[in-house]
Amino acid sequence: MNWIEVLGVVAACCTTVSFLPQAIKTIREKDTSAISAAMYTLFTTGTLLWFLYGVFVQNFPIMLANAVTCLLASIILFYKFRYK
Amino acid sequence: MNWIEVLGVVAACCTTVSFLPQAIKTIREKDTSAISAAMYTLFTTGTLLWFLYGVFVQNFPIMLANAVTCLLASIILFYKFRYK
Repeated sequence: MNWIEVLGVVAACCTTVSFLPQAIKTIREKDTSAISAAMYTLFTTGTLLWFLYGVFVQNFPIMLANAVTCLLASIILFYKFRYK
Repeated sequence: MNWIEVLGVVAACCTTVSFLPQAIKTIREKDTSAISAAMYTLFTTGTLLWFLYGVFVQNFPIMLANAVTCLLASIILFYKFRYK
């Protein structure tokens, strides 16, 4: 793996893992007032489509990263509608 | 462009544009209480690294999508620290 590939992997880890602290904060505090429902509806849909894209082009990193992010974003979206 | 490429483009549009309604909501309401600083620190860093990755592999769609998302996420991160 060359340094450009390492850069891509680090970038993917950052953007994928980033939704974990938000999901933990939302589950703990049940406060979603400042969170945009439109953002999480679009983002969850987008990561689901990215996952399907990964399935069709048989790219495992795309599938894995988007499955994780889609799951975390779905939790936040669920809380947004559950605790308005 | 075949339908799998169309799927990828739609997915990219959804995940990129999704941060726009959150940025607008945050700028309007100046309420960032429910927003995770850790998420936006990680996400902004991640999209910046993705942008640099796009520069190094000379992939314009990766550069464009991540420049837009990085800008929007930076605005939200700025508001998070400005209006705690």
